[in-house]
Amino acid sequence: MTTTDISVKMILDRWNASIKNVDALFNLFSDEQLQKEIAPGKNRGVYLLGHLIAVHDDMLILLNMGEKLYPQLNETFLKMPDKTTATLPSIAELKNFWTKQCEVLAQKFAVVKTEEWFEKHTAVSNEDFAKEPHRNKLNIIITRTSHLQYHAGQLVLLK
Amino acid sequence: MTTTDISVKMILDRWNASIKNVDALFNLFSDEQLQKEIAPGKNRGVYLLGHLIAVHDDMLILLNMGEKLYPQLNETFLKMPDKTTATLPSIAELKNFWTKQCEVLAQKFAVVKTEEWFEKHTAVSNEDFAKEPHRNKLNIIITRTSHLQYHAGQLVLLK
Repeated sequence: MTTTDISVKMILDRWNASIKNVDALFNLFSDEQLQKEIAPGKNRGVYLLGHLIAVHDDMLILLNMGEKLYPQLNETFLKMPDKTTATLPSIAELKNFWTKQCEVLAQKFAVVKTEEWFEKHTAVSNEDFAKEPHRNKLNIIITRTSHLQYHAGQLVLLK
Repeated sequence: MTTTDISVKMILDRWNASIKNVDALFNLFSDEQLQKEIAPGKNRGVYLLGHLIAVHDDMLILLNMGEKLYPQLNETFLKMPDKTTATLPSIAELKNFWTKQCEVLAQKFAVVKTEEWFEKHTAVSNEDFAKEPHRNKLNIIITRTSHLQYHAGQLVLLK
């Protein structure tokens, strides 16, 4: 194993462990718990569930891995704050989306070769990527793991 | 730049950005805000401040970079939960520790060469490291960035 292979493994391991941790939380929480705010006046659990699905869906685009699975969540969970739309998808439906999406991402990530992780992601131009080679696909995993952990620290407050 | 250099840069960039974000929060919050719980019945801001200092102090040990700067925080902020000790250091003192520690860590991390990040950390044996080369110093940065982001998501609730 080269140091590059080791780096990719460490970064993907951290992503997978974060997903596993948050997945366990979503499985633990009742619908009633997910309807609660993580703190008074803040986002509800259900909003964070939809938000994470929407952000992870966007990873498919950034990583050039196909279309979003649930583009209908974009408006409600990325563009608008919580408690500004009258109706959300049901929690059962969102949990189902989450589970399915985790499987799809895991399958797609598993077949990426080490060197492919260092290719540019789709939101950076060829010119910029030539100067900034860290704006690659692996960096999408790093930053979205950070994002996931940030919200994991909030979701755990619903316990 | 090799892909290994790029990996190290991305991982350290994410650590530094997370530190910068949390540092901005600690600078923003008044003592009164930091005395509040992040959610009803949960940790107070001041506890998370001390906890992060204690965890980051332990990184010095794991990375073989010398002694802890503030070993006196170990008991209160690592071994014991919040609100179980009568007296904490003052918030002014903890903020001062945090600032100083961020500087020390940044200075120490800046001079580590790429290949040195792939050396074993101090909590793994030579035998285990031979089989599990991902248990290296760089992985300490990855996992502590995850930890920092987890608590950043909580600290922001004090806003």
